[in-house]
Amino acid sequence: MTQLELLLERIIDRVNVNLRHQKFDVGDYVRRQTPHLHYSKFYAFYGLSADDPVHFHFKNSSLAGSYLLGRVNVLHSALYKSDIRGDELKRKGQHFVCDGKMIPLHDDEVITIKDSFLNKTLVHSNSHDPESPEEFTIRNTVAMPYANIHGSLTEGSFIGSFATVDLSTIHNSVVRYFSYVQTGELVGKCVEPGQIWIKSGDELEFHYSFDKAILDKYISQEAGSCPTGVLMEFVEVRQEDFEEVFASGHMASGAGSASGASVSGYAVIKGDTVIGENVLVSQRAYLDNAWMGKGSNAQENCYIINSRLERNCVTAHGGKIINAHLGDMIFTGFNSFLQGSESSPLKIGDGCVVMPHTIIDLEEPLEIPAGHLVWGYIRNKADLAAHSISFEEFAKVDGEVTMGRMTFRGKGGPFLDSFKKRIKRILSENGAFFDGSEGTGHAQKGKNFTFNIIQPYQDGDPRGMYPTILIQPNNGS
Amino acid sequence: MTQLELLLERIIDRVNVNLRHQKFDVGDYVRRQTPHLHYSKFYAFYGLSADDPVHFHFKNSSLAGSYLLGRVNVLHSALYKSDIRGDELKRKGQHFVCDGKMIPLHDDEVITIKDSFLNKTLVHSNSHDPESPEEFTIRNTVAMPYANIHGSLTEGSFIGSFATVDLSTIHNSVVRYFSYVQTGELVGKCVEPGQIWIKSGDELEFHYSFDKAILDKYISQEAGSCPTGVLMEFVEVRQEDFEEVFASGHMASGAGSASGASVSGYAVIKGDTVIGENVLVSQRAYLDNAWMGKGSNAQENCYIINSRLERNCVTAHGGKIINAHLGDMIFTGFNSFLQGSESSPLKIGDGCVVMPHTIIDLEEPLEIPAGHLVWGYIRNKADLAAHSISFEEFAKVDGEVTMGRMTFRGKGGPFLDSFKKRIKRILSENGAFFDGSEGTGHAQKGKNFTFNIIQPYQDGDPRGMYPTILIQPNNGS
Repeated sequence: MTQLELLLERIIDRVNVNLRHQKFDVGDYVRRQTPHLHYSKFYAFYGLSADDPVHFHFKNSSLAGSYLLGRVNVLHSALYKSDIRGDELKRKGQHFVCDGKMIPLHDDEVITIKDSFLNKTLVHSNSHDPESPEEFTIRNTVAMPYANIHGSLTEGSFIGSFATVDLSTIHNSVVRYFSYVQTGELVGKCVEPGQIWIKSGDELEFHYSFDKAILDKYISQEAGSCPTGVLMEFVEVRQEDFEEVFASGHMASGAGSASGASVSGYAVIKGDTVIGENVLVSQRAYLDNAWMGKGSNAQENCYIINSRLERNCVTAHGGKIINAHLGDMIFTGFNSFLQGSESSPLKIGDGCVVMPHTIIDLEEPLEIPAGHLVWGYIRNKADLAAHSISFEEFAKVDGEVTMGRMTFRGKGGPFLDSFKKRIKRILSENGAFFDGSEGTGHAQKGKNFTFNIIQPYQDGDPRGMYPTILIQPNNGS
Repeated sequence: MTQLELLLERIIDRVNVNLRHQKFDVGDYVRRQTPHLHYSKFYAFYGLSADDPVHFHFKNSSLAGSYLLGRVNVLHSALYKSDIRGDELKRKGQHFVCDGKMIPLHDDEVITIKDSFLNKTLVHSNSHDPESPEEFTIRNTVAMPYANIHGSLTEGSFIGSFATVDLSTIHNSVVRYFSYVQTGELVGKCVEPGQIWIKSGDELEFHYSFDKAILDKYISQEAGSCPTGVLMEFVEVRQEDFEEVFASGHMASGAGSASGASVSGYAVIKGDTVIGENVLVSQRAYLDNAWMGKGSNAQENCYIINSRLERNCVTAHGGKIINAHLGDMIFTGFNSFLQGSESSPLKIGDGCVVMPHTIIDLEEPLEIPAGHLVWGYIRNKADLAAHSISFEEFAKVDGEVTMGRMTFRGKGGPFLDSFKKRIKRILSENGAFFDGSEGTGHAQKGKNFTFNIIQPYQDGDPRGMYPTILIQPNNGS
């Protein structure tokens, strides 16, 4: 076996030990993906800036096509076209607030990925675990295409295709395809496909469960198979555009089209696309005939096609918006798929919150009124009525409410408030409110990054692996 | 002072201590160059292959625009667009032959550049010092534009513009512009401008001294000035073509135009250029309307313009050939400038050896007959008669011969033989004799390299410096 094959077997063994009580074998997933992957064909790259602490350590790993930012260790792991975004890592001297306690950081936070296989996975570093404020760990973990690990300490787990683990610490758990968990902690659980599950202590719980027969049309993956369905086809037909962008070996520092805006050199920009002020377009975002209003953003793995977004719209990682017109400050959650067509366009009114992993796939024109919470699966006006609620109505909820496959327990007001607070924070961190001097965020800061290209061995036993690389700040001595 | 300014002052101090007996101040040279240099604007890159031992360690250094290959440490040093070519480093287990003794290498050889400033300098690793077979050291040294340090352990020295130190150990010496030394050892010497000096023990010595008034027209540099003259203008007007090549961020692995050939993605190829079999074109070579016959090469910093080279011609680092037709197996030495014109073309017959640092700048058509040794400064037939000798005549020399500004002492036959042996070795190592299966050299092996781009800090105190980087082989554990 080559070094890469040995590494993959090592990872499979380790994750399977963690998941032994679940009797879950990640080998069928890892081995099935890998013959299709051409690890030695793609370079990886890491960002360097004078403003951020620099630390990279890559050891016995493959990083094919991956993007690494911040302070990152990758040890005995295989990344494939994954984004490891460490631009929100906490710094030494900052404080972590937990239950009103101020926990000081004794060192700059670092992402450590060990004994893990992340395939087209997004890792975003805004971690929330008070137990390890200096290290954001992903260990003994396998993640499938278009999974998101968002600020989540992850150990001994399997994250399925298009699944999201958001701000949660997870141990020894399986989160199957297209499930979204934001539950604070998840230990020894198996989350079935298409579960949208938000839980905050005993006070709040939102749960929606996709009809599996419907979900499988959009995305499905069983052991021993690659993921299939509408979502997978959607991204795969656009893959070539990304390959062109990466082949040109861009090292653009992300100059924007308008004042305060930042468009990654590794994004695809096509058609009659307009980029407004303070807009942030991240690497691996895809814009085709997109009109991006002031302060709006397109995060990693977003697709915005034949659509217009007014001001301050947040499109979370993996959000897809096709033939749609979004008003001001619309939040489109992780991996949501909002697809209108020319004859059946989608219109969304100001301030709406589209829950993560929502599928809107229209068979008739649809307008979602302003100030609504939207979830689930929507094809027409009747579906919308069953899968949305006005903020006004929702604020009155206190107790348990069931609407079709959705159950909510707790107080609606605080649930909405925490969503709105998070959206404001995202906009602020992205620099949407930059006024030319105050309020800088990712859109403005991204310009100071330079990208450094590293390549794997091309042949022999170490083919597809990277040499051991250690990068630390220059301290002038 | 910024980190980079502090570093340069540190280097100046160290070199000046070594050169205190010469009363030579490198500060005037280093400081004069640096305002013109834009360290933060250029990326550096290093080659990676599975066939070669990998080791890079960069610490408190600037590497702007430099190319690094093999096992290389750069510590407390500033490189500017320099080529550090470690592809002929010796390996652990190999033997170094010295006076008939076999000295085994206990480790892979490594290039260590410490406390040094190398500006557009070529370092080639075929080292010849039996006293340090495992480390090729450049320490406390300043080298100026288009200097060559070729297999030469170099400590406490200043190497002027277009000067070459070839296969010699030098300590605490000054080698001024356009001088060539191949003297085995050089300790505490000052070599004035334009001295071509080859010495092998007490048996052989070749010495040519340029008329300084003539030399200064071609190249000159005094303390506190940048180099000037025809040679400097020649390279500077072609600088833009290289900037285009580097701006495109090429990561070509060097596929050739003909079987067994290799053309670096970082070479400039213009006009109606033809690349024959087994041809090697190195990075920073410049070919414009050049016809390269089978097995010929163009090494780093070579310019071949409106010229035809038949088979197995060797153009050493920095050789320039303009409006010329070269027969088979012509050796053009380091930094030689062979300039014909459309009305005064140059023709060189088979097997000729053009000594390093020869200037041929024609005012009439000129043909150099086959089998001649050529040196010095040649503008016409009369100059040629005074600056060349047939191999047949030269082989008869035993004792001392003076021809104009050239003096030779020793036996002509062995001198010629050692030249011919070296040319054969270069051709063989470059892969000129590759037959499709046997005889691979750089032209064939170069294809397995991948290039990795690293960039400096863009702003703040470390601007122009690189982070600390350590790269070692992946060993699968």
